Amino acid sequence: MNIIRPIQLFEDTVLILDQTLLPGEERWLEIHDYRNMIEAIKSLRVRGAPLLGLAAITAIYLAAIEFTNDDNFAGRLAKAIQEVEASRPTAVNLFKATARVKAILNSSANSEDVINQLRNLYLSIHRFEEAACDSMGQNGASLFQSSGKLNIMTICNTGSLATIGIGTALGVIRTLAQSHDVHVYATETRPLLQGARLTMWELQKSGIPATLITDNMAGWVMKTKGIDAILTGADRITVSGDTANKIGTLNLAILAHHYHIPFYVVAPETTIDTSISSGDEIRIEERKPGEITFICKQSIAPEGCDVFNPAFDVTPHSLISGIITDRGVYKPPCKFE
Amino acid sequence: MNIIRPIQLFEDTVLILDQTLLPGEERWLEIHDYRNMIEAIKSLRVRGAPLLGLAAITAIYLAAIEFTNDDNFAGRLAKAIQEVEASRPTAVNLFKATARVKAILNSSANSEDVINQLRNLYLSIHRFEEAACDSMGQNGASLFQSSGKLNIMTICNTGSLATIGIGTALGVIRTLAQSHDVHVYATETRPLLQGARLTMWELQKSGIPATLITDNMAGWVMKTKGIDAILTGADRITVSGDTANKIGTLNLAILAHHYHIPFYVVAPETTIDTSISSGDEIRIEERKPGEITFICKQSIAPEGCDVFNPAFDVTPHSLISGIITDRGVYKPPCKFE
Repeated sequence: MNIIRPIQLFEDTVLILDQTLLPGEERWLEIHDYRNMIEAIKSLRVRGAPLLGLAAITAIYLAAIEFTNDDNFAGRLAKAIQEVEASRPTAVNLFKATARVKAILNSSANSEDVINQLRNLYLSIHRFEEAACDSMGQNGASLFQSSGKLNIMTICNTGSLATIGIGTALGVIRTLAQSHDVHVYATETRPLLQGARLTMWELQKSGIPATLITDNMAGWVMKTKGIDAILTGADRITVSGDTANKIGTLNLAILAHHYHIPFYVVAPETTIDTSISSGDEIRIEERKPGEITFICKQSIAPEGCDVFNPAFDVTPHSLISGIITDRGVYKPPCKFE
Repeated sequence: MNIIRPIQLFEDTVLILDQTLLPGEERWLEIHDYRNMIEAIKSLRVRGAPLLGLAAITAIYLAAIEFTNDDNFAGRLAKAIQEVEASRPTAVNLFKATARVKAILNSSANSEDVINQLRNLYLSIHRFEEAACDSMGQNGASLFQSSGKLNIMTICNTGSLATIGIGTALGVIRTLAQSHDVHVYATETRPLLQGARLTMWELQKSGIPATLITDNMAGWVMKTKGIDAILTGADRITVSGDTANKIGTLNLAILAHHYHIPFYVVAPETTIDTSISSGDEIRIEERKPGEITFICKQSIAPEGCDVFNPAFDVTPHSLISGIITDRGVYKPPCKFE
């Protein structure tokens, strides 16, 4: 499938797509210095949980090449790893990746061995994530009849810009588009407009017909446009199947329930948090007011006005028709272990 | 109550608040020439259905003063009226106003008489609309207990910037705020952001506590913030009580229904269209894509992407707890005559 690979590793170069400039400009950056890779992570030029793990490994890989003949190879690399870990302190995938890097350091004979093993780790994660996306795509597609016209609504960006491979919800949409006449309705996803900026761009690139709507049009579109399913990603899934995802997902789930439209969550099995039984236990991050009151650096609200800016909401499992993972499809209430 | 009067008539001057500059700048324009008043209508410096009727009359009033000693007073004034009518061709209130102006012209003895009668017409409409808002406020407030804390959600701008007086939905909120501890959750109302730009500004001016949210946060706020009621305006109400209003109103009605929160529509009785029995018969205006793909003149979506931009949606009467007008409160299904 015609997908974007927003991070690519070459011999001594990392190529990344600068996502902060999309959709206005498609600028690829060739990065040779691990410090520039850290800057790219910090400034969100690369974003999306699975991508951040790979980005961390590429940064450490560049550092390992730079320090390969340094007498204090291990010490300097350890310091570089610390810098990488400080770049996005809440990104779980990033820490999972550096933990695996540290295991390599402890078991490697020399700097050359470290570099080889880092490259292998990169390739291994890449393959795993890519295959997980493919499996989600197949598992999701199996829920639909084998051909025909499908109108699908989605929120935020869950495509190849946020994952490694075809994406989660957008991966299912891509898979369906191979056999169906798919039309996507993408909600713009305020405040950060990932639907408008990134999903519409990816779909345009892939040649999948799509229509952009504002978030408050979702109900009217469900009523008037014959929507067959809603597909969304997930940031965290509880044991029972309650799901935290981008703010606005709960709106779509309630609207879909009202109109008897299937509502599916698509996420890799690694998104399931078996330490949490109910969505009530999920802490919701609140972000800074300026994300709402400023768009493109211009103020759209009176100065000093109060703002509520939760980044996520929780959809109860009772509103979810199915959870599509890389290992299967689950019908809530779930009992994930 | 501390309300804005965005249009004010003086001896030979019309004072208007330039709404295109809100909330960044509160600029009042003194207008002496009817041509400038027409420009202000065309460029949306004055907006809102009831306001447009008054604005039309003030423009014709300024023209009448200008031509008072002209030999061809009637002819020149008729031409000015035509120009006013061409300014916003779909605004019903504007044509209702010019029809009343024409009746005055046919029955007046001289230019001085015309000027006096135009001034009286202005005052008469002003009083009627203002009283209608006050009645809606009282009728709406009667639906709530007599005091206490109230969290109210609203959409778009239905306040003194859009009406003459305290507003429709916002008028009920203002009335309640006199006796209750009211907190408003205002949805920003994409694409044109009237909630963020105008409602938040009005509420800040009035000292009523308010929190701005994006449209896709409505469900999460209803679930977590203890919302007592949703209050919205209406652009057209059918015989059965189906209601066309700003896009996004249907979302709120479905979400409120899900969470068992009362959903009230507030509009003057003149909004009821007795020629239409069901919401299915209401034609929904679709506006240009650029309203969605550009914010503050900056592009937020890929060039050439497809957009659906309905300006309104229709809320079926089954989702409406009550319709609050200047003459009473109606519980759908209605049988307006």
